[in-house]
Amino acid sequence: MTGHPVKFKKIAMIGCGSMGGGMALLFAENGLEVSLSDPSEQAMDKVVDKAKKDGFGERIKKFKDYKSLCASLSSPKLLVFSLPHGNVGDKVLEGLMPHLTFNDIILDCGNEHYANTERRQAKCKDTGVHYLGVGVSGGCQAAGAGPSMCPSGGKEALSTVMPLLEQVAAKDKEGKPCVGMVGRGGAGHYVKTVHNGIEHGIMSAISEAWDIMRAMGMGYEEIGDVFRRWNESGELRGTYLISISADPSHKRDSSNLVLPTVADKVVQDVAGEEGTDIWSNTEAIEWHIPAPTLNAAHAFRLASAHLGDRECAEKTVGGGFPPQKIELGKLEKAQFLESLRKSVYAACLASFIQGLNAIDAANKEHKWEIDYAAVVQIWKADCIIEADYIPSKILAPVLTDKNRSADNINLLFSQRAMQDVKKCFLSLRKVVAKCVETDQVIPALSASLEYFQDCHGHGSSDELL
Amino acid sequence: MTGHPVKFKKIAMIGCGSMGGGMALLFAENGLEVSLSDPSEQAMDKVVDKAKKDGFGERIKKFKDYKSLCASLSSPKLLVFSLPHGNVGDKVLEGLMPHLTFNDIILDCGNEHYANTERRQAKCKDTGVHYLGVGVSGGCQAAGAGPSMCPSGGKEALSTVMPLLEQVAAKDKEGKPCVGMVGRGGAGHYVKTVHNGIEHGIMSAISEAWDIMRAMGMGYEEIGDVFRRWNESGELRGTYLISISADPSHKRDSSNLVLPTVADKVVQDVAGEEGTDIWSNTEAIEWHIPAPTLNAAHAFRLASAHLGDRECAEKTVGGGFPPQKIELGKLEKAQFLESLRKSVYAACLASFIQGLNAIDAANKEHKWEIDYAAVVQIWKADCIIEADYIPSKILAPVLTDKNRSADNINLLFSQRAMQDVKKCFLSLRKVVAKCVETDQVIPALSASLEYFQDCHGHGSSDELL
Repeated sequence: MTGHPVKFKKIAMIGCGSMGGGMALLFAENGLEVSLSDPSEQAMDKVVDKAKKDGFGERIKKFKDYKSLCASLSSPKLLVFSLPHGNVGDKVLEGLMPHLTFNDIILDCGNEHYANTERRQAKCKDTGVHYLGVGVSGGCQAAGAGPSMCPSGGKEALSTVMPLLEQVAAKDKEGKPCVGMVGRGGAGHYVKTVHNGIEHGIMSAISEAWDIMRAMGMGYEEIGDVFRRWNESGELRGTYLISISADPSHKRDSSNLVLPTVADKVVQDVAGEEGTDIWSNTEAIEWHIPAPTLNAAHAFRLASAHLGDRECAEKTVGGGFPPQKIELGKLEKAQFLESLRKSVYAACLASFIQGLNAIDAANKEHKWEIDYAAVVQIWKADCIIEADYIPSKILAPVLTDKNRSADNINLLFSQRAMQDVKKCFLSLRKVVAKCVETDQVIPALSASLEYFQDCHGHGSSDELL
Repeated sequence: MTGHPVKFKKIAMIGCGSMGGGMALLFAENGLEVSLSDPSEQAMDKVVDKAKKDGFGERIKKFKDYKSLCASLSSPKLLVFSLPHGNVGDKVLEGLMPHLTFNDIILDCGNEHYANTERRQAKCKDTGVHYLGVGVSGGCQAAGAGPSMCPSGGKEALSTVMPLLEQVAAKDKEGKPCVGMVGRGGAGHYVKTVHNGIEHGIMSAISEAWDIMRAMGMGYEEIGDVFRRWNESGELRGTYLISISADPSHKRDSSNLVLPTVADKVVQDVAGEEGTDIWSNTEAIEWHIPAPTLNAAHAFRLASAHLGDRECAEKTVGGGFPPQKIELGKLEKAQFLESLRKSVYAACLASFIQGLNAIDAANKEHKWEIDYAAVVQIWKADCIIEADYIPSKILAPVLTDKNRSADNINLLFSQRAMQDVKKCFLSLRKVVAKCVETDQVIPALSASLEYFQDCHGHGSSDELL
């Protein structure tokens, strides 16, 4: 933590959707005067109304053009973008440019492709305007309560905004803010992109575990209880994605459970709204990093989105290849659930290893000088891949080790990480074997098993003979 | 076949590497005067020397600049690019442009990214020069003997060059040339890109089968014999990739087998020379097409390339997770080998289905109007994914069906294709189960099993309860 005072009293929020609106309120709540800009009057009104309700309505004002928006700020001006990815940011930047001057700072807090961020950083270079790419995680609720943030760009500008970001960011259990100067250029958005890839690997493993427990004959609430237990102790403790898997299993609409009425149709990736889901996979591929868990999880999400296609294919093949029941005795069942927990943990580890290797490959190529200790701190709390165990026990020993060679953040070479992989391997193999035998759908679990085998030396069975 | 006479007597070959050199000789052998251009004098000399040896040395001449190169051709000029992908083609095109006129034709025969092809097509548009993207397959031997070719671009220019391409292209068993007007824009390079992705899916399945047979205690030559049998009859008959897997198992250097001395280190993808290996995966992801077999095969190739990393990871984990022997009785062994054959076939089918779905998604977006009957014809012979059974029995019924809805080339909806998937499913499951149990490395086989389950309707096990 810098401990320096926050020098900004005013801030502009450009883009007032769920994330931008939440962040606008967060800044106002922290005492800043917030100037809003959004093509939708309604979106701005929603933010103003909420602010009024919460007692700081006077701190939020709407603006209709960039000139008056910029005139409402003090020098140096601080502006936040919360925009869809792609070219929108370029157009907004172009519109703002005549009203910006030397040392003004833009925080691009959208889910942007790092190359778009860097294009805009290059555009700003000669003007003296600082363009920082900020990966923001935690979803729209966290945007209002305090998200985790990974900003990157010029060091001077980063140092200038850091006290403000530290004030508004999520705090970990020790009270440390989940924000840090991640590196140069577009590193912040890159880290956020891969964060989302890791998220999808973990989510796939959890949803596969859910289906496996259904095949074991378990009811919704019983499954929810298992997730709650996993979240309480052991290697999966304090894993946000596990915790939010527990609650929906219990949720009722009047007297009926809600979950059975939800269609298996994850459409975000196919709709192309987020981008990070795609880039986290294409980037690993472009940088030659094997990331089969992330790839398999993504393909599974795509198959989920194409619900109509699946129904048509099922009809064509006359019923598909449906999962069979998994029949287990009582003792066996308890053992199998423990193996399943370890399997999900192994897939989480695989996701983190693959994601970090992708980040590191890009880091070396782009010379971003990523501060991995900052990344661990950011991932510790209030981001979607938040967990008590993995960041502290597995990532930190490698990523915050000041003596490690700069070349080496590959967790496949970490004794500590591999000790856990070894501990889970037989469980993962047992679960995958049972699921293959009974036709469960387990792309991420199965890919994680393959990953640990592929990446550990033996490429042939020759030594057997 | 057009049956029209070839109107070109002269042709320029720009880029005389193994592919370009082979094609230069092919054109010369077919009676054309070939003008060579390459920054490497040595590369050109190699082509000239070979031509002299084969008795048509007088038909091949070297040129040092584009002006004299273009002056050596008749009007309309016909030039072939065989260049590395990326920006090289742009520079060459820029250098040539002052010497080109209305109706000259360039055939870009490199492994190019379709977007690069389309950028150059756009550059040529106002000049009246026709830029055609031509996917060329069959490797450098086929380049000399007659490759399969998928050209795309403007219809008029395509019609003009088609008689020449038909003359030099590979011929299928009925003597029909393996070339066809594939579509507009960069469709030809796109089809070639995905062709290579399918190739890697098939290659992965074959190499996984090889390792499985090693774990079964089989010797190199015994495995080679199995591949030979697979290539002789059944669904894998006449599969080029199977046939070239058989021979190396028998190959000896003086008295010792060669294969045990070959390191498991596939470096082409990581070296980034080809491009198509990467694009075939990133494109499927960008178009939201689940392609887990292709993804898994690619990740496996990447893991193979990172041999040093695997050795380091193996040391870290204290020996890795090596495959165990697969112990089978004599009768069991014969049955298991038959299951393995069906599993490899299922992975081939999965690769074709995923690849074609990626092509179709891009086709719809880019409005390339791909002629799928031409694609089948091109894939029938002398391309790397050549096979007797799959193109004729599985692809043709769907892709050449004149009554099919333009919207629908998804083989998951083809009764004929799914009949075969159903026939192989239990074998694939049996093989994957045995391999999981005994720690074999089977990423593509395992991903194919998951694929057929994911894509067939059931997203949850709810119907079990």
